Amino acid sequence: MIDFRTHPNNYAHWRLEFDGEVAYLTMDVAEAGGVFPGYELKMNSYDIGVDIELSDAVQRLRFEHPEVKSVVMRSGKERIFCAGANIRMLGGSPHGHKVNFCKFTNETRNSIEDATEFSGQRYLCAVNGTAAGGGYELALATDYIMLVDDGNASVSLPEVPLLAVLPGTGGLTRLVDKRKVRRDLADVFCSVEEGVRGQRAVEWRLVDEVAPSSRFAETVKARAAEFAAKSSRPTAASSFELSRIEREMEDDHIRYSNVIVDLDRQLRTATITLLGPVAAAPDGVDDILAQACDFWSLAVVRELDDAILHLRLNEPELGTLIFKTRGDGERVLGYDRLLLANRDNWLANEILLYWKRLLKRVDVTSRSLISLIDPGSCFAGTLAELVFAADRSYMLDGQFEDDDAPAALLQLGEASFGPFPMGNGLTRLQTRFLGEPESVTAAQALVGHPLVAKAALDVGLLTYAPDDIDWEDELRLFLEERASFSPDAMIGMEANLRFPGPETMETKIFGRLSAWQNWIFQRPNSVGTKGALKLYGSGTRPEYDLERV
Amino acid sequence: MIDFRTHPNNYAHWRLEFDGEVAYLTMDVAEAGGVFPGYELKMNSYDIGVDIELSDAVQRLRFEHPEVKSVVMRSGKERIFCAGANIRMLGGSPHGHKVNFCKFTNETRNSIEDATEFSGQRYLCAVNGTAAGGGYELALATDYIMLVDDGNASVSLPEVPLLAVLPGTGGLTRLVDKRKVRRDLADVFCSVEEGVRGQRAVEWRLVDEVAPSSRFAETVKARAAEFAAKSSRPTAASSFELSRIEREMEDDHIRYSNVIVDLDRQLRTATITLLGPVAAAPDGVDDILAQACDFWSLAVVRELDDAILHLRLNEPELGTLIFKTRGDGERVLGYDRLLLANRDNWLANEILLYWKRLLKRVDVTSRSLISLIDPGSCFAGTLAELVFAADRSYMLDGQFEDDDAPAALLQLGEASFGPFPMGNGLTRLQTRFLGEPESVTAAQALVGHPLVAKAALDVGLLTYAPDDIDWEDELRLFLEERASFSPDAMIGMEANLRFPGPETMETKIFGRLSAWQNWIFQRPNSVGTKGALKLYGSGTRPEYDLERV
Repeated sequence: MIDFRTHPNNYAHWRLEFDGEVAYLTMDVAEAGGVFPGYELKMNSYDIGVDIELSDAVQRLRFEHPEVKSVVMRSGKERIFCAGANIRMLGGSPHGHKVNFCKFTNETRNSIEDATEFSGQRYLCAVNGTAAGGGYELALATDYIMLVDDGNASVSLPEVPLLAVLPGTGGLTRLVDKRKVRRDLADVFCSVEEGVRGQRAVEWRLVDEVAPSSRFAETVKARAAEFAAKSSRPTAASSFELSRIEREMEDDHIRYSNVIVDLDRQLRTATITLLGPVAAAPDGVDDILAQACDFWSLAVVRELDDAILHLRLNEPELGTLIFKTRGDGERVLGYDRLLLANRDNWLANEILLYWKRLLKRVDVTSRSLISLIDPGSCFAGTLAELVFAADRSYMLDGQFEDDDAPAALLQLGEASFGPFPMGNGLTRLQTRFLGEPESVTAAQALVGHPLVAKAALDVGLLTYAPDDIDWEDELRLFLEERASFSPDAMIGMEANLRFPGPETMETKIFGRLSAWQNWIFQRPNSVGTKGALKLYGSGTRPEYDLERV
Repeated sequence: MIDFRTHPNNYAHWRLEFDGEVAYLTMDVAEAGGVFPGYELKMNSYDIGVDIELSDAVQRLRFEHPEVKSVVMRSGKERIFCAGANIRMLGGSPHGHKVNFCKFTNETRNSIEDATEFSGQRYLCAVNGTAAGGGYELALATDYIMLVDDGNASVSLPEVPLLAVLPGTGGLTRLVDKRKVRRDLADVFCSVEEGVRGQRAVEWRLVDEVAPSSRFAETVKARAAEFAAKSSRPTAASSFELSRIEREMEDDHIRYSNVIVDLDRQLRTATITLLGPVAAAPDGVDDILAQACDFWSLAVVRELDDAILHLRLNEPELGTLIFKTRGDGERVLGYDRLLLANRDNWLANEILLYWKRLLKRVDVTSRSLISLIDPGSCFAGTLAELVFAADRSYMLDGQFEDDDAPAALLQLGEASFGPFPMGNGLTRLQTRFLGEPESVTAAQALVGHPLVAKAALDVGLLTYAPDDIDWEDELRLFLEERASFSPDAMIGMEANLRFPGPETMETKIFGRLSAWQNWIFQRPNSVGTKGALKLYGSGTRPEYDLERV
C-alpha cells in the first residue's frame, strides 16, 4: 500500500534547507529507497516515493513557510541533476501503476507552477549536472532554469530514442507551449540522446541562463534573491506545522476526522462522506492561524486529498466515487466567507489554493464521480463544487418517508463563481453551461437562496431529482450499470466529456499528452518482451513493429 | 490496396440528387459492398469504402456544383438512418487500419463542416430513422440536425455500453464542444444504448428540430430552402467535372502528372516530388474555369491528396515522407497571386480551401515529415507551406559541386500569412514562431525577396542548411536514425509537438479524442478475445479487467 503521508524528518530523498527568504530543495535520492523491490534509484532517478516527498515539501513550503519567497531546486549529486523516472521501475510496473504514477507526478509539477503563479513562491531550477527525461521535466515545471556550463551538464529528453516512450510528465507540452521551443528544434532535441549543453540550450529556449561552474552557485543565489525581492509573500508572518493526517483503516472503511470513506467491493464504489463544520466559522483571519490544522476548511481538504490519492493508487477496482456530505450548509458558507473575504491574507489564500488544486485533482481522477444530495447533507459553497465536478448528480426530491430529516438543500456560494477554476480556466458552472452562459448568471443570482431539489433541477444544477419512491432503485440501477461497463471506455469517455471549452497547458498534459503516453504504454514496441522499456540496460536491442498507425 | 478514386457513376452506397439549389445525399449502403471480406454492411453501417464515396461526393458538390447552396444528408433505408462504423469490420481489422480509418472519416466530417462554413454549402441532416454511433456522428458533422418524431427514430452513441470503445469519430468532442450538451446529460446520453428520441433530443441540444413523419419531408425541404436562400454561393456559374486522377504505379514508384513518389523500402521513406507549373499562370479567373482540372494549383493538390492517402493506408511501414519540389518558384507565386486576388470567386476560393484541407491532412499524417530544399526546387508561396508543415527542413547551402544548377531559393508568399490556417487556427509560421511573434512580422517583410539558405536559416525558417560536403551524410544519418526509432514513439511525439498554442474542436478530435480511442483500441476490454468489440453479436458477454488505470 502506498501511503502519501510523510514529513521532512522522514525524507529519504530530499533535503529542505532555508536561507532567509530562499528555500533550497535538494534532490539526493537514496538508491536503496525505492517503494517497490526490484530496482535501485540510481543517478537521482525517482519513483512515486520520491515524488511523494517532493509533493509534501512543496505543500509545506506554502503552508509552513510564509517567509519563503523563492525556491531553488537542485541536486545533491555530483554532475547529475536527475535521470528522470526510474526505468526499471517503469519497465516492471503494471499499466495502472505507470499511469497513476505519471498523473501524480504531473499534479506535483502543476503544484510547483501554481506556487510560483499564485503563492509568491517562485521556483527556479539550478541544473548543476545532467537533467535527463523526467529530470528535465522537473526543471520545466519551474519558472527559471539555470544550467551550469561545464562541458558536461546538459538537458535532454531521451525517452523517444532510448525507451520508445514519450517525455510524458508534461515534457513535450511544456517544451512547445510553455517554453515555446520552435517545433523543429523540439523535434531535434527529443531525438538526441545526449541532449543540449551550454549556450545552445539558451538559444533554443531550453533553459533561461547558463553560468560557468565557478560562478554557478553565486549566480543562482543572486537570481533567487532577485525573485524573492519581487514576491508578494508577507515579509513577516507566523505559521504552523502541517500535522500528520490521522486515519483509521479497516477493510471497507476509512475514518478521518472530517471524512469517512465506505467501500462497496460488490458495487465497486467508494462513498466519500464529508462532515461539515461542528461549529460556526471564527470571526477573523487570525483565528485561522490559531486553529491551524484544525481549521475546518484546511482539515477537510487535507483529508479528502489523502483519501482520493489512496483510492487512486491502492483501490484500482473501485470505479465509482460517490460524494456525500453531512452537516450544516450555513456553517460551510461561513467558512467560505471568512476565506474569501481575506484572500489577501497569505494563509487564507493558501487554503483556497489548496481547494482549487484538490478540486482539479478530483476532475482528473479517472473514476466515475457521482454526488448524492440527500437529507442531512451540506452541499453548500465550496462543497457544492463537488456536485458540479461530478459526472452526474442526484438530489432527493423531498424527504425520506421513514425519516424526519428535512428535505436537502443545495446552497450556491461565491465559491462557484471564481476562486476554483478547472484546468480549462473556466469555473465548473461555466463549463457546465457552456451552451447557455445565461444560466451561469441565473445561478449567481441564487447565491443566498437555498434550493430544494425541484428548484435546483429547474436551473440545470442537477442531473436527476428522484423522490423517495424512486431514489434507491434508480441509484442502484445506475451504479450497477456503471459497474457493468468497461473501465477503459469510462476513462476515455470521462476524459473527453469533462473538459469542453478552452484548453490550457494543463488540460493538454492530462488530456492529450497523457492519452498518447498511455497508448504507448500499451504498445509492444515499448512494453513488450522485446520492447525498449523492457530491454533497456540489457545490452539487447529492442525489436520494433515498423508500422505507422 | 485501397483506392481513393471514385465517381458518382460507381457509387455503391450513396445517391447524389439535385433539386435546384439543394442537393440530396442519400446513404443507402450495399450490404455486400464491403472493401474487405468477412462482414456485411447491414443497417447502413459503413467501412472505409462507404466513406471514400462520401468524401468524393462532398468534394464534387463543392467543385462541380456551384449552384448547390445547401445539402441534405438522409438515409435511403426504412426506419434506419445509419448504424455507424461496421462492428465486424472494426473487430476484425488490425490496429493500424482502425486508426487510419477513423482518421480519414474524421477528415471527411471536417470537410463537411468546412463546406458549411466557407463554401456556402450548408449541410443539414434529416435523421429519418435511428442514428447510432458513427451514424449520429455523421449527423453531428452537419450544421443542423432534424429528427423525425415517429416514436422510433432516435440518436444514440452506444459505443461505450455496447462495444467498450468511444464514439471516436468526433462524437464526444462535438457533443460537448460543438453542440454544447451539458456534460452530465452527455454522460447519460453516452450510457444509454437506445439513445434519445423526440422532444428530449431537442431539449438536450442533441438535435435542432423534430417533426412528425407526416410533415418531415416538407419541413426538411423548407429548411434546406431557407439555408440555401442565405448562402453566399453564386446563383449562376459554370463548372466542370473533376476528372479521374491518373497515375502509374510500380513497386517503388508512383507517377502522376505533377507528383512523383519514390519509395525506399530500405530507409522506409517516401519521397514526394511536386512539379511546379510548366507555364506561367493565366491572366484571369475565367482561365481557371477554362483550364479546369488541368489548372496547375488544382491538379497538384488533387494528386498530392491522393498520394498522401495512398501512403497512409497502403504503405504503413514507410515512416518518413520527404517533400521535394522541381520547377520555377516565380511561376508558383503567379498561380498563388491569381487565386488570392480572386478569393471572392467561388472556384478560386474552392481551390484555396482544398489546399487548406490538404495541408491539414499533411499536418495530421502520422509519418515524420521532412522537406528538402535543393537546387532546382521551387518551394515558393503555397509550396513553402510544406517546409513549415515539416518536422524538419533542410536546405542546401550553395550548389552541388558537380552540378551547374544554381543554389536553391526559398520564396515566401502571402500563402504563408493567412489563407492556410492549421487546425489550431494559427498559420504554420505563427505556430512555428509561437515564442517570437516578431519573427512572423519579419518573415512577412521578406515576401518578394527570395532567400538563399543562410538567409532562410538566419530568420528561423529552416532547421538545417548543410553545404555540399555535409548534405548527403547528414541526411542519410538523420533518415537512418529516424528509421531506427519506435514508430509509436514518433507518432506520439509528433502529435504533441506539431500543435502548440490554441486548441480547437479539430485539434481536440485529432489530438485528444483519437489518442484515447487509440489507447482503447489496444486494450483487451475492447479488442481482446473476450473483449466487447470481438464478442459483439455473438451472444457471449465480454469479460472486463475491472481496474481503473
